[in-house]
Amino acid sequence: MTQPTNDLLRARYGESVPPTLNAIHPAIASMLSHRSVRAFTRDPLAPGTLEQIVAAAQSASNSSNLQSWSVVAVEDPGRKERLADLTGGEGRYVRDCPLFLMWIADLARLDAIGERRNLRREGLDYLELLMVSVIDTALAAQNAAVAAEAMGLGIVYVGAMRNQPELVAKELGLPPRAFGVFGMCVGHPDPSRPTSAKPRLPQAAVLHRERYDLEAITEPTDRYAEAMGHYYRRNNMKINGNDWAEHSLHRVRGAEALNSRDRLKQALTALGFPAH
Amino acid sequence: MTQPTNDLLRARYGESVPPTLNAIHPAIASMLSHRSVRAFTRDPLAPGTLEQIVAAAQSASNSSNLQSWSVVAVEDPGRKERLADLTGGEGRYVRDCPLFLMWIADLARLDAIGERRNLRREGLDYLELLMVSVIDTALAAQNAAVAAEAMGLGIVYVGAMRNQPELVAKELGLPPRAFGVFGMCVGHPDPSRPTSAKPRLPQAAVLHRERYDLEAITEPTDRYAEAMGHYYRRNNMKINGNDWAEHSLHRVRGAEALNSRDRLKQALTALGFPAH
Repeated sequence: MTQPTNDLLRARYGESVPPTLNAIHPAIASMLSHRSVRAFTRDPLAPGTLEQIVAAAQSASNSSNLQSWSVVAVEDPGRKERLADLTGGEGRYVRDCPLFLMWIADLARLDAIGERRNLRREGLDYLELLMVSVIDTALAAQNAAVAAEAMGLGIVYVGAMRNQPELVAKELGLPPRAFGVFGMCVGHPDPSRPTSAKPRLPQAAVLHRERYDLEAITEPTDRYAEAMGHYYRRNNMKINGNDWAEHSLHRVRGAEALNSRDRLKQALTALGFPAH
Repeated sequence: MTQPTNDLLRARYGESVPPTLNAIHPAIASMLSHRSVRAFTRDPLAPGTLEQIVAAAQSASNSSNLQSWSVVAVEDPGRKERLADLTGGEGRYVRDCPLFLMWIADLARLDAIGERRNLRREGLDYLELLMVSVIDTALAAQNAAVAAEAMGLGIVYVGAMRNQPELVAKELGLPPRAFGVFGMCVGHPDPSRPTSAKPRLPQAAVLHRERYDLEAITEPTDRYAEAMGHYYRRNNMKINGNDWAEHSLHRVRGAEALNSRDRLKQALTALGFPAH
């Protein structure tokens, strides 16, 4: 294995590189090197960049070819500023990136064509269709992320766009049955503020063979929790508690930790997803 | 633009290739050429393939580094057969593929470590955390799909694994708070049964600038609906109705069209996702 590939695996798995991983396909090496980018230069994107990203997104699999997602591309500084304000303090990169993509779980397109033709569509009211559209939005967005990174750009997902879904919908003029699932900042990474790939759980904690084995993941999960405690401290990153477990559980300790997203269900109902 | 790239764009967009798309990055060309593969040879996968796919999956972005997903790799013929039976008739490729990946929205790992340490975790009971884990599962799975295709393999997502989520959970021994979101067949495409990339909506029906414009997407959506009617008939594919709109709306006409997934909400409650 080449040294750069070995370095990528070490960055991703620390001491826990799977022993069977002794060769890596070049396309996978590129994915392995993903890191979220939250600082961008002021350089504009090359013409056609957005269209290429969207073409990649549309090439992802989707359920029954319903294509139940959309994307709103935001470049206007005022609108980025207002969207940034809706994240509750995480908005610096929303403001600074040259291109902000809002990924929309979209049953409105199908609803509209059904209305024009007066066709039944009660299936749209079920949780399954919300699930379908959220999944398809995510598959599309991840293709977009891989495409952007392949072009040398950096991205970061912005889940905080779910803090106030109704206000996001209002800002973007979303029709009923459309829901902003997450945002994505796209731009040229600021070379003066490099980021690194974040270590992940050992494969032994994530990959099961034939059946899920809850007992087998205990040791590798605990090992990772401890290693990540060291990682967060070594990199002067904020950590709530002593290790990854305490930090992560702090994040889900109760409704008060969810940055208003404890009311996501009500927000979705208001946006036209009864989700029976 | 090279002829192969032009062909890829024509396969994806038909007459509606965006005029600004006059160059395509090679990595994006590879994504553009995605097509679902439902017929596989009996060739086994090269050693290390699964580990590379999982490494790509783990390199995708995820929310707050909670890593709230898992994957169960199924190769046992008996188990694949039983899982195939749970899809209700779509299972031939589940049976035939050498590797079946079941992608799991997994809050169980975090729940278990919280239980061991006696830490609060009521946030797990909210729809937001189900949403987080489903999104992160999808991002991971799409990286896996791109990785598998980069290695020359073929994949197809199997959403029909949501038809009977409790029985899938039982077959795979899933703990509470773990939910099989979708399956994925992986294998060497059968060269005697080639498939082609499916045309998608024009970008004008999917990509909005600054604000969502429901009126602007009417014409390109109608145009696509008609073109896809011809496409389905030309390729002798089953179509319910005259065009893509009628076909798609038939798929969501009511609870009876959802292949039992109208009860997804109850199934999720039974699996330990109260999703308040």
